[in-house]
Amino acid sequence: MLKNLFAAIPVDTSREAFDDLLNVPGLRIERIVSHGQKSPPGFWYEQDEDEWVIVLQGSATLQLEGRDTLVSLEPGDHYWIPAGLRHRVDATAPGRPTIWLAVHR
Amino acid sequence: MLKNLFAAIPVDTSREAFDDLLNVPGLRIERIVSHGQKSPPGFWYEQDEDEWVIVLQGSATLQLEGRDTLVSLEPGDHYWIPAGLRHRVDATAPGRPTIWLAVHR
Repeated sequence: MLKNLFAAIPVDTSREAFDDLLNVPGLRIERIVSHGQKSPPGFWYEQDEDEWVIVLQGSATLQLEGRDTLVSLEPGDHYWIPAGLRHRVDATAPGRPTIWLAVHR
Repeated sequence: MLKNLFAAIPVDTSREAFDDLLNVPGLRIERIVSHGQKSPPGFWYEQDEDEWVIVLQGSATLQLEGRDTLVSLEPGDHYWIPAGLRHRVDATAPGRPTIWLAVHR
């Protein structure tokens, strides 16, 4: 369990890193570090859990099924993704880490 | 509902500011901005809800009932406060805002 959100930023930029900050029944809080990764074309996340995300460093763009416009997330921007809402990560910032906090319940 | 965690930092430093980022049944995510405020001597929070907190800017010190040592929170440090655990804010950074994110459920 990661003790500090900004600690131990992985040096391997070839993949995203997922670390729990909290994991109790019904609530999981996760740090995600992206390095330019995005969802493959045509791939959609479809989750049974509600998810709230915030970008704290870097930037990201979300695509939501059925919406014409993308959701741009700069540091401090957050977004609520209710269970079942299909979504994908259209982009994360290239060349620097994007740090997300994700609350799943 | 506040759209960005780092936006609209209140200029009134005479009191703490509390703003929801999310409020859905069973989950509330709140930004707290402190300017050196702390809990009055002898005051304890005692909550029916679980709370997870993280400090993102500034610093804070928590006191938990029954523990001899204080919990020091620097940016990125987080802490889980289960329902019923009496606690107080022993200090927040003077002269600059301390930005907390608090997840209540």
